[in-house]
Amino acid sequence: MIQTDALVIGAGPVGLFTVFQLGLQGLQAQVVDVLDAPGGQCAALYPDKPIYDIPGVPVCSGRELTQNLLRQIAPFSPGCHWDQLVSSLEVQADGRWLVSTERKHQPCQQFLARTVVVAAGVGAFVPKELKLDGLGPFLGQQLFYKAPPPELVSDKDIVIVGGEDEAVAQAVHLAQACQARSITLVYRREVLQASEDTLAEFAVLRDAGRIHFQAGQITGIQTNDQRLTGVTVSTPDDQTLNLPLDLLLVFQGISPKLGPVAQWGLAMERKQLTVDTASFATSAPGIFAVGDVITYPGKKKLIVCGFHEATLAAFGAAALVHPEASTVLQYTTSSALLQQRLGVLPAP
Amino acid sequence: MIQTDALVIGAGPVGLFTVFQLGLQGLQAQVVDVLDAPGGQCAALYPDKPIYDIPGVPVCSGRELTQNLLRQIAPFSPGCHWDQLVSSLEVQADGRWLVSTERKHQPCQQFLARTVVVAAGVGAFVPKELKLDGLGPFLGQQLFYKAPPPELVSDKDIVIVGGEDEAVAQAVHLAQACQARSITLVYRREVLQASEDTLAEFAVLRDAGRIHFQAGQITGIQTNDQRLTGVTVSTPDDQTLNLPLDLLLVFQGISPKLGPVAQWGLAMERKQLTVDTASFATSAPGIFAVGDVITYPGKKKLIVCGFHEATLAAFGAAALVHPEASTVLQYTTSSALLQQRLGVLPAP
Repeated sequence: MIQTDALVIGAGPVGLFTVFQLGLQGLQAQVVDVLDAPGGQCAALYPDKPIYDIPGVPVCSGRELTQNLLRQIAPFSPGCHWDQLVSSLEVQADGRWLVSTERKHQPCQQFLARTVVVAAGVGAFVPKELKLDGLGPFLGQQLFYKAPPPELVSDKDIVIVGGEDEAVAQAVHLAQACQARSITLVYRREVLQASEDTLAEFAVLRDAGRIHFQAGQITGIQTNDQRLTGVTVSTPDDQTLNLPLDLLLVFQGISPKLGPVAQWGLAMERKQLTVDTASFATSAPGIFAVGDVITYPGKKKLIVCGFHEATLAAFGAAALVHPEASTVLQYTTSSALLQQRLGVLPAP
Repeated sequence: MIQTDALVIGAGPVGLFTVFQLGLQGLQAQVVDVLDAPGGQCAALYPDKPIYDIPGVPVCSGRELTQNLLRQIAPFSPGCHWDQLVSSLEVQADGRWLVSTERKHQPCQQFLARTVVVAAGVGAFVPKELKLDGLGPFLGQQLFYKAPPPELVSDKDIVIVGGEDEAVAQAVHLAQACQARSITLVYRREVLQASEDTLAEFAVLRDAGRIHFQAGQITGIQTNDQRLTGVTVSTPDDQTLNLPLDLLLVFQGISPKLGPVAQWGLAMERKQLTVDTASFATSAPGIFAVGDVITYPGKKKLIVCGFHEATLAAFGAAALVHPEASTVLQYTTSSALLQQRLGVLPAP
């Protein structure tokens, strides 16, 4: 059990800057993210795309912004916890919050936090589901949204759904590395959307008959004795055909899912947390929220707005943790205390 | 008369970023500042001091921040007007604002603006006054807060008040370049606070009897027939002495003065403008306000908060100027329209 002044949920740019402002306020922070690295959406979805509207930074990529924020928070040495989904928040008798996370292949992690800042963005990014009646029970057995365990692939008929990089690359990988009986890629359009290199490899394997391609939408499934045996495909020329399969792999990209945040009993409006804009406090004492997960009059889902919200939330958290501290505003250009906390002046 | 979508009053970091966000919203802006260069307090008061709390910028100086913001707004080519104090705002029959500025040695400039964003910070930085009864009438005749007209200096007894860079440098300059009868520098402390070079020049001139130094506070004035004839100085060892003079030059540094903003009839609270935090609109339709000049619950006078305020004010101004435009939020990473406005994509 890790005890902390503040637990930040979400390590996107706004979550990272929250850690910085908490540090300036003298609060030690732990940060948790469901992804396996910091940066959130920004690093996961557009690491190399230019961003032009960070104030004072005419252009930077999502990766550069993340790296700069990590440099900025380094003086405060936050505890970082990747690949964990915060599953529950429970208030304790002393007002602290017991926070539990789920981790892959590991026991859950628990935190006891004086304050919590939810910076969960539009939610955890999870694979886009293939929505078909009756498919649910096969998840993890014959249906996968990630690479399947290698021992399941051998001598199987495999259908892969999707036509962008990840789907095409998986088809190529399975054809090259595994002993599948057949591999069929199904995509709603005739033209695949992957990188040139991947497409070139795909073309070679397709010409060699080691991957089949079928344009069309999957509209139904076939089952037999609790086994998934095939899918129905509706083609662009309005034909319907059945593809037999043993394994169904779905790579349709990822989309955000708010997840457990919605079950914590915090006041919400249209799937977003409502906050007091003076301190970005939620309806629960000690829980603050910032960034794309919140709504208030005038709210814009922009990183620059999240930075402001993070700042006021840190002041709000500090007022709870250190109610006795001075509230006179200090500046990093002139305050010896802040410069000591930043490590640019030696500690007293 | 310059017509514009938006007039931004104040070219500190927050005023400059307002120009950027207005530009992204497709609004052409004019920016006016009382200083002779952009950057506001940040560039005028601490150009070389490190700032540590700009998000994504682990450290930068006030000068660097200003330069980066100028690069960021360059695609929008705002009209820039330095050395001008906005003196009046008057609403017109069509809802636009007629804005007049005062300029040194030049006729006033007028603007007709669809919207106005006040980003005036803690006010115009003006010289700190020497507060003595009866001194007022001599301003511009025998009392100056800036270098006096050269023709007034010749053969005169001059008292200079102040002990920091500007005061000491003025004493040195007058002693070297002008034919004053006498020059006396009066400072409340024995030790002057100027740069080494200036102090070295000062010492040479003092040793040569061309500048006199007197430690003490000025406590009163002598006048004769509507002329200022001398000042009374109270010395650190509790003596009182009179210094005769023809010219009194005061260089005690600068301090902010809210100035005309307070007379525009906008709703205020404790000398700050009150705003609606959804759009940073003031009490007057079409006038927005951002940065250190405003107050609202939770307000912190930090640059990072001003950047957020600037962003929402630009959306507010755009909704007034282009009420028909789509309000769907666009991102600089992905929007062709925003990238065309930024000049990174060619215009359509």
